[in-house]
Amino acid sequence: MPASARELRALVFDVFGTVVDWRGSIIREGRRLGRARRLRVDWPAFADAWRAGYRPAMARVRSGELGWTSIDALHRMILDDLLRQFRIAGLSEAEKDHLNRAWHRLRPWPDARGGLARLKRGFTIATLSNGNVALLVNMAKHARLPWDCVLSAELFRHYKPDPEAYLGAARLLGLEPRQLMLVAAHKDDLFAAKACGLRTAFVRRPLEFGPQVRTDLRAERAFDFNVDDFFDLAARLLPGKP
Amino acid sequence: MPASARELRALVFDVFGTVVDWRGSIIREGRRLGRARRLRVDWPAFADAWRAGYRPAMARVRSGELGWTSIDALHRMILDDLLRQFRIAGLSEAEKDHLNRAWHRLRPWPDARGGLARLKRGFTIATLSNGNVALLVNMAKHARLPWDCVLSAELFRHYKPDPEAYLGAARLLGLEPRQLMLVAAHKDDLFAAKACGLRTAFVRRPLEFGPQVRTDLRAERAFDFNVDDFFDLAARLLPGKP
Repeated sequence: MPASARELRALVFDVFGTVVDWRGSIIREGRRLGRARRLRVDWPAFADAWRAGYRPAMARVRSGELGWTSIDALHRMILDDLLRQFRIAGLSEAEKDHLNRAWHRLRPWPDARGGLARLKRGFTIATLSNGNVALLVNMAKHARLPWDCVLSAELFRHYKPDPEAYLGAARLLGLEPRQLMLVAAHKDDLFAAKACGLRTAFVRRPLEFGPQVRTDLRAERAFDFNVDDFFDLAARLLPGKP
Repeated sequence: MPASARELRALVFDVFGTVVDWRGSIIREGRRLGRARRLRVDWPAFADAWRAGYRPAMARVRSGELGWTSIDALHRMILDDLLRQFRIAGLSEAEKDHLNRAWHRLRPWPDARGGLARLKRGFTIATLSNGNVALLVNMAKHARLPWDCVLSAELFRHYKPDPEAYLGAARLLGLEPRQLMLVAAHKDDLFAAKACGLRTAFVRRPLEFGPQVRTDLRAERAFDFNVDDFFDLAARLLPGKP
């Protein structure tokens, strides 16, 4: 174990893309709805467009243009635009709400559940997601993710990468930032955590944006760990434990 | 199942006294310290005095006399007084801190872990405690309590029985108050939750204050359930499930 990991007490995880496969899950839910309602929609394009609306929507909250708005509400604002854009008509309010809550039912990457269970033996494991608490709790229940604690930007009313989110997680867990490590598939999230004094682990998720999109998977010396999945991280952090 | 329980989605639990035996745990930790440091202390009286300081300390926060102060910090203020009062001298700062964190290591009542596991199959289960998040997370890890979510007065900066704590829990879980039930061994907590629209389950914990103290264990018609332990509650809420 590197020296930097010796003081480590807790791992906090980015969720969308790092723990769960949002793209594959949204496409699958879309196709199911499409079959039921006989819709002709390019669901991969729909999933990508939904996710593409996410950062600009959060930026409006981070800049103060919008007051605090949960991810559920931001997802719904984007969805209402997309339904027009993709010419999907005739959905009831209950169907729209169910589709919006597809984000509560995202499926974990194949290593996530088992890798988390292993990491949980050595550390406190918690979410640190921009997703709201209800979304994360429902997702954990649905996907059987064994979190010790569900932490969300909602608790701090600051979306990542605002420093309040990372420092707030350390404060609630009663730890110094250096005792905490962010695990994420996104380098900007990790650099922001590092600037707050947290340890960092980059997890490669080559399929997050689909098989056609090349993502930046290069290891960075700035991060404490660069790993292929959660089992790889567990092997590095807990080398003695099977 | 009574009609009132049909809409139920989540159970939130008071923790000190309801889930864990604070008195027996503090006495045991005190006796261990006493043996190690050759102290002659009436540890049951010490435990009772520590707990007796808890409500007045929280009242100072609730009234605004003290700014927001975590239970860890309030426990430590009371502990420092008690060390003088019980003439316990010569403890190092590390020993005092370890003793203060005895509240992170409280042991569950015998039915708690198994009863929670059963209730978790039908509902989201979460803490709703005045204990701070770090305390509750460490306790859950130590006692293997299978919470879906750790909610604390700390997240709302309002101690129970302030309504902000109960309504805040409903908001974070994305539920209406009537979809939430407080499970507690203390009637004042339950009446405050009921006033906010939550469902209520009273759990009898006859030994919370020790075998010598008679506590009010009478069923109340005002509560949705009056039960003997968490298995009893599971049998009433999930009658089909073994």
